[in-house]
Amino acid sequence: MAYVNPTGEFTRDQRYIGTRITADGRDGFPVEPGRYRLVVSRACPWANRAIIVRRLLGLENALSMGVAGPTHDERSWTFDLDPGGRDPVLGIERLQEAFLARYPDYDKGITVPAIVDVPTGEVVTNDFAQITIDLSLEWTSLHRPGAPRLYPAHLREEIDEVNEVVFRDVNNGVYRAGFAGTQEAYEKAYARLFERLDQLSARLERQRYLVGDTITEADVRLFTTLARFDAVYHGHFKCNRSKLTEMPVLWAYARDLFQTPGFGDTIDFDHIKRHYYEVHRDINPSGIVPLGPDPRGWLTPHGREELGGRPFGDGTPPRPLS
Amino acid sequence: MAYVNPTGEFTRDQRYIGTRITADGRDGFPVEPGRYRLVVSRACPWANRAIIVRRLLGLENALSMGVAGPTHDERSWTFDLDPGGRDPVLGIERLQEAFLARYPDYDKGITVPAIVDVPTGEVVTNDFAQITIDLSLEWTSLHRPGAPRLYPAHLREEIDEVNEVVFRDVNNGVYRAGFAGTQEAYEKAYARLFERLDQLSARLERQRYLVGDTITEADVRLFTTLARFDAVYHGHFKCNRSKLTEMPVLWAYARDLFQTPGFGDTIDFDHIKRHYYEVHRDINPSGIVPLGPDPRGWLTPHGREELGGRPFGDGTPPRPLS
Repeated sequence: MAYVNPTGEFTRDQRYIGTRITADGRDGFPVEPGRYRLVVSRACPWANRAIIVRRLLGLENALSMGVAGPTHDERSWTFDLDPGGRDPVLGIERLQEAFLARYPDYDKGITVPAIVDVPTGEVVTNDFAQITIDLSLEWTSLHRPGAPRLYPAHLREEIDEVNEVVFRDVNNGVYRAGFAGTQEAYEKAYARLFERLDQLSARLERQRYLVGDTITEADVRLFTTLARFDAVYHGHFKCNRSKLTEMPVLWAYARDLFQTPGFGDTIDFDHIKRHYYEVHRDINPSGIVPLGPDPRGWLTPHGREELGGRPFGDGTPPRPLS
Repeated sequence: MAYVNPTGEFTRDQRYIGTRITADGRDGFPVEPGRYRLVVSRACPWANRAIIVRRLLGLENALSMGVAGPTHDERSWTFDLDPGGRDPVLGIERLQEAFLARYPDYDKGITVPAIVDVPTGEVVTNDFAQITIDLSLEWTSLHRPGAPRLYPAHLREEIDEVNEVVFRDVNNGVYRAGFAGTQEAYEKAYARLFERLDQLSARLERQRYLVGDTITEADVRLFTTLARFDAVYHGHFKCNRSKLTEMPVLWAYARDLFQTPGFGDTIDFDHIKRHYYEVHRDINPSGIVPLGPDPRGWLTPHGREELGGRPFGDGTPPRPLS
């Protein structure tokens, strides 16, 4: 999915399969318990969003989850973690099979997160930005009691504003730095990334969460990049003005979320590091995976409770992972 | 100069030209003011030792210095920083010419530091470990008044002991991590590196310098690796358990030396980063040079004066760079 345009800038292919699973089923795919399977990789920040939101909303029983291995070849994600190398529900070895089941001549990226219609084995959507919004707004009938409101109507405009710049400069910005084809394109992405992180740090200095006083979709989206920052983006993608651990406000904010049920318990640093360092041979030819950084800092006190805030609003935390 | 043996371990070619410049001239090269030229690169940690020692001992007028550019091709170091791309004293474009002048069929590494006999244009030695020792012990007649004793007889045994493990696990250890051909070889080098850094940190917790209470050859050798740690070894060589800035004792020790005349004033982070990231295309195919890390921390207070110590012993600091 890495394309470098003539000026050396990385351009993300954003042509996703946009079919939506909705309460009213207007695209032919109504919300139904047990009908769909969310396919993820624990390495991928875009999939990580869906893992977190599914868990915060308590959709585990309604929407099962298949986990692809952290590494993949040119034909993309495989179910190599499963017995026999096949997803036990979909019965396939490669996520590609579900894309080809839907479109036999599919030639765009085989990406996670993807939601597959289990009866037909066809991918319904891989539109990661819409998936989490729909889990919040369309799957409400299947939410657990006490599920938080991650995309409440009165904050939506502000969440969208934050998400737009966080996507451009941070979520995708780290890729623009790491996959830059020229020094100039890299420096431009680096400057935008750290300028934005400084702005976000200033915003979070006196408020616990990005928008309002509870966790929202905006926090989920920033978190999944921050969680990977020191493990991969700092070295592998050359986003090295400083480590996250050297940006005190953002580091405390990230630790606060990490220690909140539904966030840190979705993170697998081993999968994350293996994915980036083993798959991107164009920037790491040896495929050697760094042993660092020491992840124990994630569990240290963050002190953000002093800023107030009600993580789950009128809701409750998800139950611990069994 | 990077060789990977069958087990994936990086092995440094240590076959240097061992001819020595001595007070008694027993190898045919007596110490003489103005006769020799030290060729360095500001990027190279091995050359950096010689730059520091030459300056601490006040040998600038007696031993002139040629500076090769930070990057080089497969034929090694060039004088691309000089007008017309030629060293103004030696009149050569490539350091290789001085090696071939000495040995027409020379086929080992063209390395810095190298000392060239100006009248003949021939390399005398590139044995970096011996060069600094000889500057201390053989060039004494040309030392400035107040030159410190970097390798005093009564501490020599202890300095040698420290240097041996620092070379194996730290100076060369970072290369063993970065140039490892297998995950196993990398992990072994990484473990030894950080175990040694932890031991050195413990040693330096209550004493200002590595051996005795003054700066010695041992400090020079550790410093040149620490100065490059966050700029290149942390990311480029995957020595990323933590940054130097996250190891409080070593970071204060390194800042103390950096702020001592003769140390920090020899460091050029731009040359350092460009060398490693542009030359090692096998581990950084794009050749893109990271913008970070922010180097301003090097000038912050270090608090090491509280440990006592007399940096220059009975001597004095070198005069500031003009």
